[in-house]
Amino acid sequence: MKRITRITILVLIAVFVFSAAYAQFAKPENAIRYRKAVMTLMAQHFSRMGAVLQGKAEYDKDEFSANADLVAKLATLPWDAIMEPGTDKGDTTMTSAVFDKPAQLNKIAESLEADTAMLASTAKSGDLNAIKAQFGKVAQNCGACHKQFRK
Amino acid sequence: MKRITRITILVLIAVFVFSAAYAQFAKPENAIRYRKAVMTLMAQHFSRMGAVLQGKAEYDKDEFSANADLVAKLATLPWDAIMEPGTDKGDTTMTSAVFDKPAQLNKIAESLEADTAMLASTAKSGDLNAIKAQFGKVAQNCGACHKQFRK
Repeated sequence: MKRITRITILVLIAVFVFSAAYAQFAKPENAIRYRKAVMTLMAQHFSRMGAVLQGKAEYDKDEFSANADLVAKLATLPWDAIMEPGTDKGDTTMTSAVFDKPAQLNKIAESLEADTAMLASTAKSGDLNAIKAQFGKVAQNCGACHKQFRK
Repeated sequence: MKRITRITILVLIAVFVFSAAYAQFAKPENAIRYRKAVMTLMAQHFSRMGAVLQGKAEYDKDEFSANADLVAKLATLPWDAIMEPGTDKGDTTMTSAVFDKPAQLNKIAESLEADTAMLASTAKSGDLNAIKAQFGKVAQNCGACHKQFRK
């Protein structure tokens, strides 16, 4: 009985994983390409904000705000692709630790989404000190995730 | 006098091009990587909608709408990176025709932005026939741009 239960659970997991994979990414390499694309755009728009805060580029409130909005949107995207089975192999710098510590990844995901959303809303205020502080919080999430889950 | 005017214009163009390049992309390859990332995400979310309209995936109004919103946002992003000088060489399938026909590219850009924005708003109605028609219009822009400007 226990054995049957275990098999049933395994089958259910397989069906779930298969449907999810079918629905979102046809092949593991598509998931890898997808999340890399998200990271490329995030890095670009995050560093445009960084350049402003470091005084290397002019501050334009609307432009800064558009970058913050976009980063907040992008922050919601990569998680399914990161959790896609088999994507710790191939053309990727992601470690298999994401599959061992999904709760830890999820915590970072929630924190990044919340902090980028807050940055987007702070950016609308135009208060550069508050923006700078919130920008720092977002950056901490990047660092925490890369330290644990990137080779 | 004519010569001086011409030189002045060339200097002004150079300053403009340089500032734009500095502000957005440090190197041509960054612009190439950026626009490829935009295309990867657009293709993924556009094809998720396509799968629904072809009956290969279940229709969920909110999910479809989120895909349409995201594609509309992404459609506004790649143009600076496409027009970045020197990015018709290297790891790209873009032809140098974009630099010969900027007005033509601009027309397609405006059309894609308008049509994807309309798709996002049509998606909110949940009217699948209208959605399908608008989806087709968006696809025509993809085809028109790729035909003219992609190797």
